[in-house]
Amino acid sequence: MIKVALVAAVALAPVAWFALAPGDASAPSPAEIAASAPPGDWIDIPESELLLMETAEGGRVVIQMASEFAPVHVGNIRKIAAARWWDGTSINRVQDNYVVQWGDATERKTLPEGVIAKPAAEYFRPVKGLSPDWIDWPDPYAKRTGFWKGWPVGGDGDNIWLTHCYGMVGVGRNLAPDTGSGAELYAVIGHAPRHLDRNIALVGRVIEGMEFLASRPRGTGDLGFYTDGQQRIAIGSIKPMSDAEAGAKSRYQYLSSKSFSAYRDARANRRDPFFNVPAGGADVCNIPVPIRRAS
Amino acid sequence: MIKVALVAAVALAPVAWFALAPGDASAPSPAEIAASAPPGDWIDIPESELLLMETAEGGRVVIQMASEFAPVHVGNIRKIAAARWWDGTSINRVQDNYVVQWGDATERKTLPEGVIAKPAAEYFRPVKGLSPDWIDWPDPYAKRTGFWKGWPVGGDGDNIWLTHCYGMVGVGRNLAPDTGSGAELYAVIGHAPRHLDRNIALVGRVIEGMEFLASRPRGTGDLGFYTDGQQRIAIGSIKPMSDAEAGAKSRYQYLSSKSFSAYRDARANRRDPFFNVPAGGADVCNIPVPIRRAS
Repeated sequence: MIKVALVAAVALAPVAWFALAPGDASAPSPAEIAASAPPGDWIDIPESELLLMETAEGGRVVIQMASEFAPVHVGNIRKIAAARWWDGTSINRVQDNYVVQWGDATERKTLPEGVIAKPAAEYFRPVKGLSPDWIDWPDPYAKRTGFWKGWPVGGDGDNIWLTHCYGMVGVGRNLAPDTGSGAELYAVIGHAPRHLDRNIALVGRVIEGMEFLASRPRGTGDLGFYTDGQQRIAIGSIKPMSDAEAGAKSRYQYLSSKSFSAYRDARANRRDPFFNVPAGGADVCNIPVPIRRAS
Repeated sequence: MIKVALVAAVALAPVAWFALAPGDASAPSPAEIAASAPPGDWIDIPESELLLMETAEGGRVVIQMASEFAPVHVGNIRKIAAARWWDGTSINRVQDNYVVQWGDATERKTLPEGVIAKPAAEYFRPVKGLSPDWIDWPDPYAKRTGFWKGWPVGGDGDNIWLTHCYGMVGVGRNLAPDTGSGAELYAVIGHAPRHLDRNIALVGRVIEGMEFLASRPRGTGDLGFYTDGQQRIAIGSIKPMSDAEAGAKSRYQYLSSKSFSAYRDARANRRDPFFNVPAGGADVCNIPVPIRRAS
């Protein structure tokens, strides 16, 4: 790296705490690493794991379900979506720097047949037999953090769990030990509320349309609930992607393998020209797994 | 804590990875700790540290400046606000899970007299003589993190710096070693982009009206810039709070002392009834310093 002394600026300014060094023009940014990854480093996400939400006003949101972390809750969600139970419900809560939440505002709709109303908790699962790609940087919430099959995870010696990163989708519930059925869902729209890890069932993540959810007007009631029914955002439909019309279908891939490792390390040590000081580490929620539409 | 066995739920569900315990009904939540803090634990923020932004469509945003971290940049910002240079400029960029940015979209306005166009970097400052309230939980970006005079900070043995938490305000710049004058500002609207710490001058934080900034429509151009001038959000005025009309003025306090310590520890170990598993730690950006309007 070339050192540049800012003589003019230092002369003008009363305080100069350190000299700047520009980044390395040859170092790729994380986005450039993802963009140049070979096709084999992109893994297909099965269509069977996708839900499509379309709001009455034209919002389009695609959710990838986390079947391997919360199979009973995801089983419920599959049944609820297949029955088109959410069609005509609404986004009812938007709490700034926290969550956007949707479901049946009347709380009176009967759940579709076969939905388990009170599932047991699926807040973590045994790590035995899995091989997460752990990262080495410390984390205040978990002994270890890393990635498994493209998901951000925390873990200890025995268990592994999904982490509450931006865009993750979880199951709204009442006070413990309730776990929620999955009919009421939320997505994280602010700084990762990692204190919720292992306290709520995470069931997936938004992989398209987060900007629609995150930019909804905040509710002014307690916990960000809309106080007036008119403020609620009508949900046209939430359906399995496999049930979408041909023109509405889309497929996705996540970045994996060597390209993901290079991307992950570049997130922790930015050396591209904008940066002066590589951080030397990153938190699992500040390493968003690249996901793209498959052609 | 009372252990409750979820016999019925376990019987219904095929997988039960752990038994739930409800939280402690007598444990206060972080919000309850702040709400019951004695008046002496709330510290006044001087009016001289406040800026008031009012948008043409009625948005109201209050910014607290961080004079002790970036005195030259903040000096510039004071001059720019006092000259009402930002009046008639606009919010030009909203990048999801990153930043909202405002300033002169034409990039042609002459800066007010006395503004230092190319200040030296103010990305960290010596810690000598300061006594930050360090937290014990590990952090992937800094040797230590904590709080100083109500600000979230990172540090090593020699220096201290502001951290890029939700709502923090920084100085837009071009490639290193440019530092920006302060005429172009951004606020963090997503997960903390801590890799920017020590790479950009942080100059303050939004203490009222974050929900307005965070809910603006995302731009569809590169880096979230609006592609059409019509999409820009007109700024009516940005002025020192001391120059605001009496009816528009407001005063603020931040939580400190024993009440802040109790709040901080409760953020790391939630024991109130919603929670089953206290995290055992928290990251500095997930311990937002409580700020309230002073009566």
